[in-house]
Amino acid sequence: MKEIKGSVTSPKGFSATGFAAGVKKSGYDLALLASEVPAVAAACFTTNVVKAASVLRNQAVLAAGGKISGVAVNSGNANACTGEAGKQANADMAAALAKELGVAPEQVLTASTGVIGSPFPIETVAKGIAAAFPSMGTAEENGHLAARAIMTTDTYPKEIAVELTLGGKTVTIGGMAKGSGMIHPNMATMLGFITTDCAISKQLLQKALSADVKETYNMVSVDGDTSTNDTVLVLANGLAENPVIETENEDYQAFCEALHHVNLFLAKNLVKDGEGATKFMEVNVTGAATKAEAKQMAKSVVCSNLFKAAVFGEDANWGRVLCAMGYSGVSFDPEQVDIVFESAKGSILLMDCGTPIVFDEEKAAEILSEKEILIRIILREGNETASAWGCDLSYNYVKINGDYRS
Amino acid sequence: MKEIKGSVTSPKGFSATGFAAGVKKSGYDLALLASEVPAVAAACFTTNVVKAASVLRNQAVLAAGGKISGVAVNSGNANACTGEAGKQANADMAAALAKELGVAPEQVLTASTGVIGSPFPIETVAKGIAAAFPSMGTAEENGHLAARAIMTTDTYPKEIAVELTLGGKTVTIGGMAKGSGMIHPNMATMLGFITTDCAISKQLLQKALSADVKETYNMVSVDGDTSTNDTVLVLANGLAENPVIETENEDYQAFCEALHHVNLFLAKNLVKDGEGATKFMEVNVTGAATKAEAKQMAKSVVCSNLFKAAVFGEDANWGRVLCAMGYSGVSFDPEQVDIVFESAKGSILLMDCGTPIVFDEEKAAEILSEKEILIRIILREGNETASAWGCDLSYNYVKINGDYRS
Repeated sequence: MKEIKGSVTSPKGFSATGFAAGVKKSGYDLALLASEVPAVAAACFTTNVVKAASVLRNQAVLAAGGKISGVAVNSGNANACTGEAGKQANADMAAALAKELGVAPEQVLTASTGVIGSPFPIETVAKGIAAAFPSMGTAEENGHLAARAIMTTDTYPKEIAVELTLGGKTVTIGGMAKGSGMIHPNMATMLGFITTDCAISKQLLQKALSADVKETYNMVSVDGDTSTNDTVLVLANGLAENPVIETENEDYQAFCEALHHVNLFLAKNLVKDGEGATKFMEVNVTGAATKAEAKQMAKSVVCSNLFKAAVFGEDANWGRVLCAMGYSGVSFDPEQVDIVFESAKGSILLMDCGTPIVFDEEKAAEILSEKEILIRIILREGNETASAWGCDLSYNYVKINGDYRS
Repeated sequence: MKEIKGSVTSPKGFSATGFAAGVKKSGYDLALLASEVPAVAAACFTTNVVKAASVLRNQAVLAAGGKISGVAVNSGNANACTGEAGKQANADMAAALAKELGVAPEQVLTASTGVIGSPFPIETVAKGIAAAFPSMGTAEENGHLAARAIMTTDTYPKEIAVELTLGGKTVTIGGMAKGSGMIHPNMATMLGFITTDCAISKQLLQKALSADVKETYNMVSVDGDTSTNDTVLVLANGLAENPVIETENEDYQAFCEALHHVNLFLAKNLVKDGEGATKFMEVNVTGAATKAEAKQMAKSVVCSNLFKAAVFGEDANWGRVLCAMGYSGVSFDPEQVDIVFESAKGSILLMDCGTPIVFDEEKAAEILSEKEILIRIILREGNETASAWGCDLSYNYVKINGDYRS
């Protein structure tokens, strides 16, 4: 597997575009994505009790089992908490793209992100779909336009493409994502769209995605909170003509590894571009009794507002790390803990087997002055390990979220 | 029951003082509290796996069942994550006050709040105890000094006193508390000290406190996170000479009500003075299926960073309220929900039975311009109700926590 320059249009048969439909006051706000042959689809959605109209419809469409030809995505309005009118508007949004594609509405999925609870401007979106459709294309640049159009407070588009060889055929995977508020990222909307020309059964595509989401998107500063709109969707149209993956064979493993690479890249970039983020951090727990406990503890630290604010302030307040470990719900012996802070500037041991080290504050400050920080937590409870990724908590997070609708 | 002007020295037989011992760079940092006759004691402590030296020792002392004559409290250093040296320092701190009081060390409790993981300056504290002891007194002002000395980033002392009559005798309760970081307040240290001259059994005092903590301190923007040092302590010395409360009789109920008044006042003031807080909010849930669900949902909303930032920005982003309800873990029908924002400037219905209302933004902005905001959530699942209290998320929260140790 190797990374290539590309976008969601890199796999064979996928076309896309981005367009300024007028949902936002200015800028791109409508992305269209299509496969020239119907694709098998797999998806993971928010677990929030309150689900956006697009999530409810997509779940129903995918449960019916048919293949998918297109996806319409808008930013600027989440079409969530919008009642019956919102559901109708969402159905109309799908129908508008289906009409252009000449397929049944059940072959079209949708996604929305933006303000919750505002009436959905379906006329603007429907007109936008008709106007944008002629600009759809298979060039790399068409994918870039789509990646820009799904952004809300993101400061840069998140895109990746990889190639691998399966049964002598080149299989390509492309991906794009958008993030948002990053203290608990799933509280804001996270959308991810993965395209591939891999030939794979719907069942195994879903299995691969569901397993990988737990290791990637769910490990970026998330504590189980999810927004009304969170969606990760994979479309696989089979045009690579590799032997169809229908069992968990070597090809399946290779596909899963490539999918993981794509998802992890996108997930990490969601936090790197977190609202107001100035620093990226990885929290790595080793020596945990179970994998689940390692993940739980890593997430607890990466989600601690107090620690995130300390990282913003470049303050080596490792006590807040130990505190977050302590309320994570994981049982451990605090007197058997090592804590190390690392960056490109070096590493510093702050707690050694439960004993705080009197450390060089200048060296710690130098390490924390870097943009990427690694927090290593070593337990002595077992042999399991996990990482979680997050960002700091800055003035700008408050600024962005204090006035989001304006 | 009535509120009176007073402090922790208002109940008969209690003396206190505050002192600048030098743990902090400047200002009061040592509080001493004593009862002229040994008092029965009840307490609630942090559930964090990582517990400060004072918490571990207090738990052991209280489990042994003896009465308490004095409490030494310092701010500026939490004596948490400080290993064996910290435990010894804490024992020495108790012994220092015990020596002055002429009692056994087992009759003295301790509490510490401040930076986690720094070596505890026991010499400074022990010298401070000896130097401060002569200034202990029973005047109201002595209590005020103690309330100031337990503060860390608090901007004002939190104190209250109430009187009630039990069996023809006047019983007095005094209280003081300090708070801290307020996004999840229990992640930072919350200390509360309640004194009373009520005659009550240790068992019923503990029962009253344990029940009331769930309705007060645990409902202020808390999601179960607790710091290494959280402590609420009640001392009851019996000098009011009321008939000893040994059963759950009318006197017990009256005492519980007065204790609740004291705890609720202190808890609300912890959030009103939350780090960087500019606004105080109450989230009230009615129509829930169970009391536990009402509490869980109210806490979920009051803890939402996204909503707290919106309150700071005076943005009527009720979608974030519904979103936080949705990930609270409580099952409910989103299409049977009303949401109302209220303040001294009026009230505004934002969602009516699941349907968003097109509302007057100017009126909403006027309502949100107030310092105290009430968010009313009406479900149609049952008849249970609960409130939680919190504050907004401001630039200053980040500033304070980004550079706390400096």
